[in-house]
This record gives sequence, C-alpha cells and structure tokens, in this order.
Amino acid sequence: MYLAKIYVTYKPSILDPQGEVIKSALTRLDYTGISQVSQGKYFEVKLDARDVEAATAEVKSFTDSLLINQNTETYRFDLSIVNEDEATL
Amino acid sequence: MYLAKIYVTYKPSILDPQGEVIKSALTRLDYTGISQVSQGKYFEVKLDARDVEAATAEVKSFTDSLLINQNTETYRFDLSIVNEDEATL
Repeated sequence: MYLAKIYVTYKPSILDPQGEVIKSALTRLDYTGISQVSQGKYFEVKLDARDVEAATAEVKSFTDSLLINQNTETYRFDLSIVNEDEATL
Repeated sequence: MYLAKIYVTYKPSILDPQGEVIKSALTRLDYTGISQVSQGKYFEVKLDARDVEAATAEVKSFTDSLLINQNTETYRFDLSIVNEDEATL
C-alpha cells in the first residue's frame, strides 16, 4: 500500500488572490516580516499498486486528469510505503 | 529569509466530504486501487525572522490564529532557509 502526498500550487505566472489576501491580513495583524504567501491544495491518497513505478504512473495519471487544472496549476508529490492497518492518514 | 511549507489536514475524527467525492470519482474512472483520499490545504509563506526559533514561533502563531480552524483542522510544517533573490515559491 502506497501513500501519495500531492502538493498542488499555482504556476508562477498565475495570480494568487487568496495568497495576497492572506498576506495583507497577516501584515494587518502585525506579522510584518512576511514577504510572500501562496495557497495551494494538498492531497493524501492511499493506493494499492504492483510496485513503485506503477504507483508513480497512477498518481501522475489521476492527478493530471482529475486533481489539478493543468492550465493554471502545477504539482509535485512524494510516495511512501505504508502499512495497510494504519487507519489515519 | 525562511520558507515555511504548511500542510493543513482535517483532524482524524472529522468527515472529509471532498476526499470522499474525489475517491468515488477516481473509482468511477477505473482507478480501482484507491482506498483513501483526503484533501487539505497547503501554504507557502516567505518570512524574515531573527533565527529559526523566531521563525518557528511566528509560523505557529499565525497558522493557529489565521490559517486553520482549530476545531476541525490540524497542521504540520517544514521550515527552510531560502535566498532572498529567489522570486518563485
């Protein structure tokens, strides 16, 4: 059983209005050292696969097709092997 | 300059309807090995701080107060040192 942790962020050229809003809120709250904030999405997916290569291919395939918007977002992921009995992600 | 990568997930006892919807969508798309999906949020924050301890304290403070809902969400984060000139997160 594999655990994929997938981090989705906007592509560098895409405006991130949420990040900008959070940055101004933090500045108003006197967190003055903050120079950049970006908000993305984070997925944890548990999957069965034959081997690491098959798991990697599957994660790429479903992330491209379902989890991200390829026009505006990019992603990276880590894969780890987990015990089937671990209930919590 | 520090870069904090903050991963926000639901607490284990909290229902994650988005994760459930994504899991059923993936199953319908013939990704049959998937046993659990959870969706969370991911933040990248660049900040100035005196040292690692100060940066850690600041990240904890603003994450608790602004970025998460402490009733339903939990988080972890990594801190790394980055060059001020790196424009992209």
